[in-house]
Amino acid sequence: MPGKQGRKEEDAIFVGGKPFMNYVTAVVMQFSSEGADTVTIKSRGKFISRAVDVAEVVRNRFMKDKVDITKIEIGSEEFENEEGKNVRVSTMEITLKKK
Amino acid sequence: MPGKQGRKEEDAIFVGGKPFMNYVTAVVMQFSSEGADTVTIKSRGKFISRAVDVAEVVRNRFMKDKVDITKIEIGSEEFENEEGKNVRVSTMEITLKKK
Repeated sequence: MPGKQGRKEEDAIFVGGKPFMNYVTAVVMQFSSEGADTVTIKSRGKFISRAVDVAEVVRNRFMKDKVDITKIEIGSEEFENEEGKNVRVSTMEITLKKK
Repeated sequence: MPGKQGRKEEDAIFVGGKPFMNYVTAVVMQFSSEGADTVTIKSRGKFISRAVDVAEVVRNRFMKDKVDITKIEIGSEEFENEEGKNVRVSTMEITLKKK
């Protein structure tokens, strides 16, 4: 299902080290300009705290009473670092849905 | 229900700035020595990433195949800082339950 998968990817926002409001704006735009019904906020490691802040600010301020949190998932990813050591990193996905 | 509430409080672990393994051990002990059926990992602000790490390490390593994540909740707390300004902080609760 290339169409559907494509659409899903578009509606994911990856939270990293850019200015905080970039991510808030990106989520709000996804709902408004892009007409998304759900937006998934994805993050890893130390950026997880930030992703929660993004979700909370969207939900309580910019789209107050307009979106619900419908899913929160946490997980782990394992990968090999430069020294060939196995490293684990936590991941999180928060899904917001238009009311 | 003072008894039940009391029990619930005992089964909450607050993740902060102490060494990481302290929290992992505290959760595992709550299940084993204290015989808890569920343990809630609570955190605020920047410690949220750490709380997710604690949950993941307990679930995937120390109590592999023995616990499930049954609930993840995020929220906000507002308070007045030293300069009398209203500040918002994100909160998170992850509930683990014995299988």
